[in-house]
Amino acid sequence: MNIRMVVNILGKGLFFMSLSLLIPLCASVYYQEDDLSSLALGALICGVAGAVMVFLSRRPEGELRHREGFLVVTLAWTLAGLFGAIPFRLSGYFASYIDAVFETVSGFTTTGATVLTNVEVLPHGLLLWRALTHWLGGMGIIVLTIAILPYLGVGGMQIFNAESPGPTVDKLKPRITETAKLLWGIYVGLTVLEAILLLAGGMGAFDAVCHSFATMATGGFSTKNASIGAYASPYIDAVVTVFMLIAGANFALHYAALTGNVKAYLHSHEFRWYLAIYSLACLFIMWNTRDLYPSFLQLLRYVTFQVSSILTTTGFATYDFIKWPVAAQIMLVLLMVIGGCAGSTSGGVKVMRLGILIKFAHREIFKLVHPHAVKSIKWDGHTVQPDVLQSILGFSIFYALILLVGTLLISMLGIDFTSSVSSVIACTGNVGPGLASVGPMGNFAHIPPAGKVILTFCMLVGRLEVYTILVVLSPAFWTR
Amino acid sequence: MNIRMVVNILGKGLFFMSLSLLIPLCASVYYQEDDLSSLALGALICGVAGAVMVFLSRRPEGELRHREGFLVVTLAWTLAGLFGAIPFRLSGYFASYIDAVFETVSGFTTTGATVLTNVEVLPHGLLLWRALTHWLGGMGIIVLTIAILPYLGVGGMQIFNAESPGPTVDKLKPRITETAKLLWGIYVGLTVLEAILLLAGGMGAFDAVCHSFATMATGGFSTKNASIGAYASPYIDAVVTVFMLIAGANFALHYAALTGNVKAYLHSHEFRWYLAIYSLACLFIMWNTRDLYPSFLQLLRYVTFQVSSILTTTGFATYDFIKWPVAAQIMLVLLMVIGGCAGSTSGGVKVMRLGILIKFAHREIFKLVHPHAVKSIKWDGHTVQPDVLQSILGFSIFYALILLVGTLLISMLGIDFTSSVSSVIACTGNVGPGLASVGPMGNFAHIPPAGKVILTFCMLVGRLEVYTILVVLSPAFWTR
Repeated sequence: MNIRMVVNILGKGLFFMSLSLLIPLCASVYYQEDDLSSLALGALICGVAGAVMVFLSRRPEGELRHREGFLVVTLAWTLAGLFGAIPFRLSGYFASYIDAVFETVSGFTTTGATVLTNVEVLPHGLLLWRALTHWLGGMGIIVLTIAILPYLGVGGMQIFNAESPGPTVDKLKPRITETAKLLWGIYVGLTVLEAILLLAGGMGAFDAVCHSFATMATGGFSTKNASIGAYASPYIDAVVTVFMLIAGANFALHYAALTGNVKAYLHSHEFRWYLAIYSLACLFIMWNTRDLYPSFLQLLRYVTFQVSSILTTTGFATYDFIKWPVAAQIMLVLLMVIGGCAGSTSGGVKVMRLGILIKFAHREIFKLVHPHAVKSIKWDGHTVQPDVLQSILGFSIFYALILLVGTLLISMLGIDFTSSVSSVIACTGNVGPGLASVGPMGNFAHIPPAGKVILTFCMLVGRLEVYTILVVLSPAFWTR
Repeated sequence: MNIRMVVNILGKGLFFMSLSLLIPLCASVYYQEDDLSSLALGALICGVAGAVMVFLSRRPEGELRHREGFLVVTLAWTLAGLFGAIPFRLSGYFASYIDAVFETVSGFTTTGATVLTNVEVLPHGLLLWRALTHWLGGMGIIVLTIAILPYLGVGGMQIFNAESPGPTVDKLKPRITETAKLLWGIYVGLTVLEAILLLAGGMGAFDAVCHSFATMATGGFSTKNASIGAYASPYIDAVVTVFMLIAGANFALHYAALTGNVKAYLHSHEFRWYLAIYSLACLFIMWNTRDLYPSFLQLLRYVTFQVSSILTTTGFATYDFIKWPVAAQIMLVLLMVIGGCAGSTSGGVKVMRLGILIKFAHREIFKLVHPHAVKSIKWDGHTVQPDVLQSILGFSIFYALILLVGTLLISMLGIDFTSSVSSVIACTGNVGPGLASVGPMGNFAHIPPAGKVILTFCMLVGRLEVYTILVVLSPAFWTR
């Protein structure tokens, strides 16, 4: 294990976070609010910790191999949560360090679950840092899912890696740098575009930036207690609906489209499934909630927004959907499990995996009818290789186990059935709000500290595609 | 497709059911109650229908091949439900034919979910027919899972079929007859033994017979509204607890034990997992409900009974477990999904499949740490073959999809979240009672007709190991 290399990278990461904290610090100076010292001290602690780590591990030798890769990814998100929480805790707006870590991990994992009962009392600096954790987390996720996880062979992500399949490639660095630059360009561009469109719709500049950060990261932190619903603007609803759907699609498709290959969307199985699931879910819920809205346009507006928000695992709300009929709520829970597309900032199982699982199961029926026939599973025109398939199947089993064990643990703290189930699904899927007491107009403040720790773990496990953390926690990883 | 052979077998089945109806008919004569004419007419209709079918398809030629196998199994349980419901409906004790079919399918699938708000008003003949549907269904299931499904290659059951793996064996008959006789002998013997033990505990002869039928089939229909709790006897609770556990274990193990190989239990991976899950679930719930009972013995008695009842998917109750804390209830729901052992009369996913799924998922972690190592999955000392593994994985995907779609459909009828989820899980797992409004002291009477049809389908799909029905419903089955 090249520990020196691991510490070096993590130290640089912390140093980068320290620099990032200067952005909300500037906001704090500008607005002259009470979060200046906590942001400054937070930046200082992160900077010193990062500098010390880089100094101790200076001039690391060798390459980053796949074992170190798992460790770096797991520790990067964990440390981001632990250190990023410092300004929150120092500010006094969070009741405990556990609360602050929950909020920060919720940010960096682009979940959007909050322990705050009233976000509007927060000073601008902290609100911006909250939105920024989403945005930085989303940047990390894009690179993670498109460049790193395929090389680590995690969860079927290697399906995107047609040139060199398998988890044995050892040189990550060149590929990461190159891919990162391209995709981050798109990410930044779309964020700027959304912010401009929101500004044009009358949203204040500060809120427009925060909501754009939260949208593109499919995060869901809002600067308003009533989330996007606070603006009561059909235009803003529409803009956010569309940008959530964009953020929930594979960024490699956006890249292809920008370089002239707009047909890439149509040729992508996952994108077609994604739109199909979105459309069907909208129709189902529109039919189910048809009596709740005075006009068809209202129905269309609220349902298309909420389905987009939940399927992409953003978690914004324009309506308190726990007032919808039970069937509509259960549909939302199913969407939380499905999630958006692989290679996006969204969470959940991902449409690609669901599609391949269903194709796999369907083949088993076919095999029973035609025992001697050989039928391969195709995705995007390519045969899905056995190791990719097994990785996806294993992913689904672990995902289900985490949901089941998580629900059991949360319910042991005295949380009701619906809140227990939906909080674990919403956190593991990086959605944010669930149902009942953790619904869109509720929050996670009432969950006991032990529950917050469990849900924080769920957010991390879900965000890092399950395997990454489980590998690092497995005894086999440490004994060699 | 050898339709003539299919019709012939089903006709003989109906004729056999007609003969079986003579048993409750005798009870009706003995007790001189108002169900005599409906039972007699029911037996007549079944007998005539069966005779006509056998006459029309007389002297069938050829062998029963695997395609016909799927059709016979699916139609056998469907027809048993449709025809077995006739005496119930004729008696007037059931509000509609749908209600009567729900109750009968619940019987033959050994589910035990009831639409009756008061079973104690039923005459003895109908109560006995109700118990008998369990017992006959259980007989069918033992042969189905140990002899038929392995040859059809369904759901990983071929793991029991070491001599000739794969779904291509075409001659079912000799093996079925031989296996059936052996296992039915054990089934009958255990039923008689339990009835004697219940009699010895002061239960009336009629009730002892009905409850033994329901126990060995892991069914759960009781002759009392308060189920086994009506007897308030620790002795009876203990007897039923043990016999439910026996009925939930693989009958091939009981056969091995009776022929001198008692160690077979210890050598069976599934049996060890089964006892481990049972013990852990008991400990978990005992800890969780420790404040509800005045003494440790009471706690032990009620929890060991209920966990045995739910894990084996019987569904008897001695306590209204919807009054337990949420965590205990969620544990029960997990047990409903797991179910007992393969080759028993219990439902659910089955312990064997769960064990192999977990071993499979664990191997995926191992593969990420050691990309070049080759590790096979072992069960009972043998390597699990890829086709068995894939069959089990496909089974789990379909099982999950059925639970999700079923829950969505039930919730569309306006049923609350917990009742929707648990009714579908309890019916698909052939358990019987669920949580909330379909709890052990509740029933399924309030579910709208459409919901009863959906849940009836869930019971059949779960009972016939999912694939059997899905294969028959697949277009590929009918186009050749």
